Amino acid sequence: MYITGIGRTKFGVLPRALPELLSEAVARALRDACMAPEELDAAYVANFCAGPFVGQLHLNSLLSSLLGGTHIPIIRVEAACASGGAALFQAGIALGRYRTILVAGVEKMSGLDGPTTSYNIAMAGDAGLDRTAGLVFPASYALIASAHMHAYGTTLGDLALVSLKNHQHANLNPLAHFYHKTVTLEDINASAPICSPLRLFDCSPISDGAAAVVLSAERRSDRDIETIASALATDTLALAERERFTTFPATRIAAAQAYAQAGLGPSDINLVQVHDCFTIAELIALEDLGFCQPGEGKELIRSGRTTRAGDIPTNVDGGLKADGHPIGASGLAQVYEIALQLRGEAGERQIPKARIGLAHNIGGIGGTCAIHVLRKDDRR
Amino acid sequence: MYITGIGRTKFGVLPRALPELLSEAVARALRDACMAPEELDAAYVANFCAGPFVGQLHLNSLLSSLLGGTHIPIIRVEAACASGGAALFQAGIALGRYRTILVAGVEKMSGLDGPTTSYNIAMAGDAGLDRTAGLVFPASYALIASAHMHAYGTTLGDLALVSLKNHQHANLNPLAHFYHKTVTLEDINASAPICSPLRLFDCSPISDGAAAVVLSAERRSDRDIETIASALATDTLALAERERFTTFPATRIAAAQAYAQAGLGPSDINLVQVHDCFTIAELIALEDLGFCQPGEGKELIRSGRTTRAGDIPTNVDGGLKADGHPIGASGLAQVYEIALQLRGEAGERQIPKARIGLAHNIGGIGGTCAIHVLRKDDRR
Repeated sequence: MYITGIGRTKFGVLPRALPELLSEAVARALRDACMAPEELDAAYVANFCAGPFVGQLHLNSLLSSLLGGTHIPIIRVEAACASGGAALFQAGIALGRYRTILVAGVEKMSGLDGPTTSYNIAMAGDAGLDRTAGLVFPASYALIASAHMHAYGTTLGDLALVSLKNHQHANLNPLAHFYHKTVTLEDINASAPICSPLRLFDCSPISDGAAAVVLSAERRSDRDIETIASALATDTLALAERERFTTFPATRIAAAQAYAQAGLGPSDINLVQVHDCFTIAELIALEDLGFCQPGEGKELIRSGRTTRAGDIPTNVDGGLKADGHPIGASGLAQVYEIALQLRGEAGERQIPKARIGLAHNIGGIGGTCAIHVLRKDDRR
Repeated sequence: MYITGIGRTKFGVLPRALPELLSEAVARALRDACMAPEELDAAYVANFCAGPFVGQLHLNSLLSSLLGGTHIPIIRVEAACASGGAALFQAGIALGRYRTILVAGVEKMSGLDGPTTSYNIAMAGDAGLDRTAGLVFPASYALIASAHMHAYGTTLGDLALVSLKNHQHANLNPLAHFYHKTVTLEDINASAPICSPLRLFDCSPISDGAAAVVLSAERRSDRDIETIASALATDTLALAERERFTTFPATRIAAAQAYAQAGLGPSDINLVQVHDCFTIAELIALEDLGFCQPGEGKELIRSGRTTRAGDIPTNVDGGLKADGHPIGASGLAQVYEIALQLRGEAGERQIPKARIGLAHNIGGIGGTCAIHVLRKDDRR
């Protein structure tokens, strides 16, 4: 399948309602594909939490309204923070039946008080097990970070380097939540503890935003980017049910499937977008995806190999950490960035010679993982 | 595709948590299919509103836990009250890729106060348009009922007959929310106004419950029921955007597609489950599905043709009105009932010679409509 159109909004704390955000991303993706809404055969909407956040469900029907009252099949998909990747995965399956499919993701998160916001996000975790023990997400990832530090000697300084890198990357992305926000190692090290050992700058922000892609079963133009792998795996919901905290089996399983589908391995990937909802998650993702051995994520960030100048450029848009994390949109924003880079249209932040990119989208603490591998047309 | 296993819980106000309900329906469907969880290739979870109701999202990962930590692809689908039908529609598409798929729907709705419950359900409507005008669902359907009465001469008495019929049907369904609840025309006519002209007995109840089906690409046993049509159409979210209130275009479009797929028409259907969230919705559904002309739904109910003794037995399990309406489960409970009837396993409420059944599942005020047509194996 081919990604024939991409679009997104600015991410950040925005004075805009959910329908506006969704509408803008969809309009941009359709315009990018030179396509009218009437040419769509079906659509998917990815959203995590618009019920609790803005009191709006039934977003598939909302998208019908935004598309001018279309009657095409539209489905809302939710898989916590992997909603975007899950919707793309579903759309890939549906491309067997439809020729052209829109996949749009949106989240409106800002505007509520802190405890309510935290409670809403915690709905991605297990209400019956983890949450009764106080495990909102920063707490879960704090346990995960502690376990990783204990097992492998990863340090707070390593996590700070992940944060620094992603903020530096975001400074080249005008649509990023933290575009041109100067962040130094001193800022990161001095930032408030959220849940020890994680500090403020180890956490992705509360963002509003939307992203969309248009898929086509056939190549429509020489700007199209081929999706050569699409995999999704699930795992238990609660941390309490996991044997180990330092690896996410769903990532490993989805990655193995994706590499097999694409007929390649980690060393063939020129560009990676991983799900860095917390800094520790980026290191674990790179390990689970096979870019290094378990526990060696720290070597990657220390060596600079995952910066935009390195050989495994990771989260070159700033990642969830600094581009922002409007949950339902994040998985599609990853694909947006990879498609933009592979097209050679990333402007100031263009990675030279990028040909193959991988997007890694996690829900909760790895209860869902969606992985997509994109390839630039060889004939270009 | 074939329905090779079915299962559901009792519907009602139940002292049980969402995971228990989901687990029971899934276990029953798997047992009915003589299948172990390990034999599933993928799964879908239909749920409308577990975030606002019980603070639990990411139900696809919850289902992974309930299935013993499976890593298969599982996706949550939400399309308001059509979530169940939409999930089945998606699963039908995915059967091109997978051999065996579980589709489970669940909703836990009881236990909150009235205004919160009403607000949560109203998330299926348009927060920006209808709801700012006070249109929670009983109000929207009251406008629809008024328009239908004005246009076609439908009366309150006709609506009462729909309610009476469905309560009588539920009295033969031990799993129904209102099993063995004696309801008379006098009770209905004396019931409290909810939103004029609709009275309490015109409205479906707030129910807890779950239902599940197991789909197979190939026939596995002679109890399997074939799905010969699966269609889904969307429409605008707000009543404010509709030209007419007396018909749902999404039903008409999905029905035309379903009849074309199945190669048959309304006169071939022996058994109908329609989305009677309010009594008026049953009459409009029967009109939009082509069982009579527009406005003639009242003749069907007056004549008794839609009772279990008639030639268009409609909502023989009691329908949403009296079987109950645990939103995410409702669309799958319709399919459960049809499959049970076509197998000839419906016991006391068995409809003789039922061979082809149609399930009609609506989201909101017709913003989504999913239709499935099921056929009994001719060789049986």
